[in-house]
Amino acid sequence: MSTPSKPLPFTAAQIREIAKTYPTPFHIYDERGIRENARRLNRAFSWAPGFQEFFAVKATPNPHLLKICKEEGFGGDCSSLAELVMCERVGITGEKIMFTSNNTTATEYAKAKELGAILNLDDISHISFIYENVGLPGLVCFRYNPGPLREGNVIIGKPEEAKYGFTREQLFEGYRLLKKKGVKRFGLHTMVASNERNAEFFVETARMLFDLARELAEKADVRLEFVNLGGGIGIPYRPEQEPVNLERIGEGVREVYDELIRPAGLDPLKIFMENGRMVTGPYGFLITTALHHKSIYKEYVGVDACMSNLMRPGMYGAYHHITVLGKENAPHTRTYDVVGSLCENNDKFAIDRPLPQIDRGDLVVIHDTGAHGWAMGFQYNGKLRSAELLLREDGTVKLIRRAETLDDYFATLDFTSV
Amino acid sequence: MSTPSKPLPFTAAQIREIAKTYPTPFHIYDERGIRENARRLNRAFSWAPGFQEFFAVKATPNPHLLKICKEEGFGGDCSSLAELVMCERVGITGEKIMFTSNNTTATEYAKAKELGAILNLDDISHISFIYENVGLPGLVCFRYNPGPLREGNVIIGKPEEAKYGFTREQLFEGYRLLKKKGVKRFGLHTMVASNERNAEFFVETARMLFDLARELAEKADVRLEFVNLGGGIGIPYRPEQEPVNLERIGEGVREVYDELIRPAGLDPLKIFMENGRMVTGPYGFLITTALHHKSIYKEYVGVDACMSNLMRPGMYGAYHHITVLGKENAPHTRTYDVVGSLCENNDKFAIDRPLPQIDRGDLVVIHDTGAHGWAMGFQYNGKLRSAELLLREDGTVKLIRRAETLDDYFATLDFTSV
Repeated sequence: MSTPSKPLPFTAAQIREIAKTYPTPFHIYDERGIRENARRLNRAFSWAPGFQEFFAVKATPNPHLLKICKEEGFGGDCSSLAELVMCERVGITGEKIMFTSNNTTATEYAKAKELGAILNLDDISHISFIYENVGLPGLVCFRYNPGPLREGNVIIGKPEEAKYGFTREQLFEGYRLLKKKGVKRFGLHTMVASNERNAEFFVETARMLFDLARELAEKADVRLEFVNLGGGIGIPYRPEQEPVNLERIGEGVREVYDELIRPAGLDPLKIFMENGRMVTGPYGFLITTALHHKSIYKEYVGVDACMSNLMRPGMYGAYHHITVLGKENAPHTRTYDVVGSLCENNDKFAIDRPLPQIDRGDLVVIHDTGAHGWAMGFQYNGKLRSAELLLREDGTVKLIRRAETLDDYFATLDFTSV
Repeated sequence: MSTPSKPLPFTAAQIREIAKTYPTPFHIYDERGIRENARRLNRAFSWAPGFQEFFAVKATPNPHLLKICKEEGFGGDCSSLAELVMCERVGITGEKIMFTSNNTTATEYAKAKELGAILNLDDISHISFIYENVGLPGLVCFRYNPGPLREGNVIIGKPEEAKYGFTREQLFEGYRLLKKKGVKRFGLHTMVASNERNAEFFVETARMLFDLARELAEKADVRLEFVNLGGGIGIPYRPEQEPVNLERIGEGVREVYDELIRPAGLDPLKIFMENGRMVTGPYGFLITTALHHKSIYKEYVGVDACMSNLMRPGMYGAYHHITVLGKENAPHTRTYDVVGSLCENNDKFAIDRPLPQIDRGDLVVIHDTGAHGWAMGFQYNGKLRSAELLLREDGTVKLIRRAETLDDYFATLDFTSV
């Protein structure tokens, strides 16, 4: 039987050493991997005027990782007050912030405007809502939902059933309203994919927005300053999957740009993206220790991580690759459910997974937890969320988030009044 | 068109007044409802020797609600260190705690033993694990997983695919091991339903355990002190659903007790349960304010609550009834998706729901959030978890958990080292 594998940026011995200082479970991020990948994305779009990636903070809201993104030239894509404040505190401000929210409060718009962020409006009614509550800024972007005009991908579902964005008609009406209110700088955004690995999907998204940019220029005298292709670049969770061809996305978008934008005299039109998963996802690892082996109607390995550390397998049935440290090359002779300790039967990191024999105390690596991993964790069943570590380029390790304690868990309670 | 409705323990005017002090969103719990229902459960089993309900803390881990449960005679069903500590801090200790965990750490067993809790073992390997790490207590319970011998209900799925419990053979072997190690008091537990509304299901569960109690007495000379029927009593989320007939469960279990336990000379055999949802579920309400109306390919009402306050609709597609305050009797002339603000399209409290027209500022009640509501909330997208309020029997309101702040959200981060 072939034994599929995924590369690790650390050795078993390194992690064993780290685990002496930082008890499992913990997430560890690979700085080198994040930086090299960030540069690859920037290179793929180096042809594009004013290319800007805004890292989707929601994917991994850690200021130390945001700082790395900032150093690589990325801005921040925020969706809430907390994310805006986090960006501010690491020095990402002004038009380095894209505020892509929905069903937004006036408080959030006020903060985004104070920071000079680009406001990306989710709905036409928000024009008057912002106007009345905080005043419109000089640059405004609209989120386009193509509805039945475009199919979404498998993960994001059908655009016409998504709560986001403007219809085509609303875009024209919206820019007209903006102009009437004195706004002079315009952007256009869409987000029609999640975890998509086909490069051509993003080229088609660019084509859709470039077509719209032309039409807006011709019919509505709206000259866009940028189009934001959204995020959604996927990652290969399974070892047999190929990573997304970033170079092909960059080249494909360039071809469509040359075909549609230059001849229309709309060059330069800035290209923005707001990826999260592809920026940090493959470069984060959840490290957990095998606590128990259980044999009933199936074979189980219980680990000290649970859904609180990683929701995707339990919530979506998502695949995350697993490596047993020190047994990287051992044959996969066993079939296990790898489970956490929640009183929820979906608290399983893997179901019927061929793996090497796992013994109590073995360190287990759950791959590709660098995005939507720590971020989605809850405290259900009184579980505490884990620490986050950074494996730096020089091989040292930095604690970038401490593990929660019982005091954190009880912080919003006043026992003296019980 | 008929307009289905569910009763509310408060008036629109009351909630409007409360919302002036405590901004929405918040959860509010009805003390009277919780107490009356608790008494009904105790009455239904008043015939049973030593009947004991252990409230499943995970459902709503709030010490003020635990205190109410305690006053009604309930114990606490815990699954983690944090839940054990919470029980301790409200004075629920000793055999008033059932520690029903799985994939458990030695630290948790040590704490449970220190508190004198009843240890309910999930796996036969935990006998030696406890023996070696913390020592076996005098009373030990086993969780039984009937596997293919019993069908689970729709929600919990097939027992043979669940990670929990002992097989039948392991039970016999397990009690033998306990006796060999000097343990003298024994319990038996199972949990084969979740949100089940058919009373007969619980009667059948009792029959299964009573049969086992007889067989254990006859074949293994094990005299059980109690059987724990588990939890899983459902609640009527939809207005057309009937509440579970608790009296019938009590009466049905009594019939089987009289049929199986008394003639075998096993009386008294204590009956335990560990319900969560039915104890607090119908008596909690999520109060939220309508922020936006949006009209694209569908009609949307955006509210100021989101999945962080209630995961069940987004995570399971679960139905939660919605009432618009002040429009309780208005005809349901509109069809809305009622949505939160997460950048997740499943952040919807209702899809295509007939409702009265909802205007900006309307207070919206989401029903039956008293269990697995606040408890399952996450902070994804930088969202903060809400306050919890108690509507006391005298009509006053008490803050029983403050809302989170940005400082709470950032508590595990050290920005000075960024």
